[in-house]
Amino acid sequence: MSNKEINKVNLKSKFDLINNFWSPKIVAELNGQHVKIAKFKGEFVMHNHQDEDEFFFVINGTLFIELKNKVLELKSGEFVVIPSGIDHKPYSKDEVSVLLFEPKTTLNTGNIHNKFTISNIKKI
Amino acid sequence: MSNKEINKVNLKSKFDLINNFWSPKIVAELNGQHVKIAKFKGEFVMHNHQDEDEFFFVINGTLFIELKNKVLELKSGEFVVIPSGIDHKPYSKDEVSVLLFEPKTTLNTGNIHNKFTISNIKKI
Repeated sequence: MSNKEINKVNLKSKFDLINNFWSPKIVAELNGQHVKIAKFKGEFVMHNHQDEDEFFFVINGTLFIELKNKVLELKSGEFVVIPSGIDHKPYSKDEVSVLLFEPKTTLNTGNIHNKFTISNIKKI
Repeated sequence: MSNKEINKVNLKSKFDLINNFWSPKIVAELNGQHVKIAKFKGEFVMHNHQDEDEFFFVINGTLFIELKNKVLELKSGEFVVIPSGIDHKPYSKDEVSVLLFEPKTTLNTGNIHNKFTISNIKKI
């Protein structure tokens, strides 16, 4: 890769391109992993990822993640790793902006296929 | 893993534990990768990582990354991926707080071994 192709990215300018909730976009790729961003609002589906751990970092807003026996509440500047195989259901009352680290193989709805499933996530 | 062990982390509270510049700490591990945080001030050493791409995300402050033929200036909320094999030298005029995402195998000084090298990075 030429140095000319190495450029910084402003995260807010990427979030400004997102108009839909629960529709993650790829903002960087490295070491077989994706850095994704997404806006969430409302309820997602309970699911798990067989082989992938998932890193959720809240950039703005408040994200709830329901597990089997507790609910995590993440505010701006807080993160969590959801290990592979662990059922989790993200939801939020108001709009929340989230940064994700996860393997390129990760399907947003994991073991569930429904209206939220996006198998061809775009790079922005 | 039990759900009881899955807890959120406040990034600022982790940064508050860091007293030294150029001394990254591990704040999460997933999929063979580390999420690290560090405070930088002054000049680091020009180096590259043979096999690892590196993600730098500026949380607070301004980070400069010198490449062979240009200098990147990243402010709070901006990130860059430095691909494997690319020489880079981070520096900053004032203190800057940075989040890193990179493989567990990554040595902070890459192909260089000097006073900045930390081969046993701690988890906080």
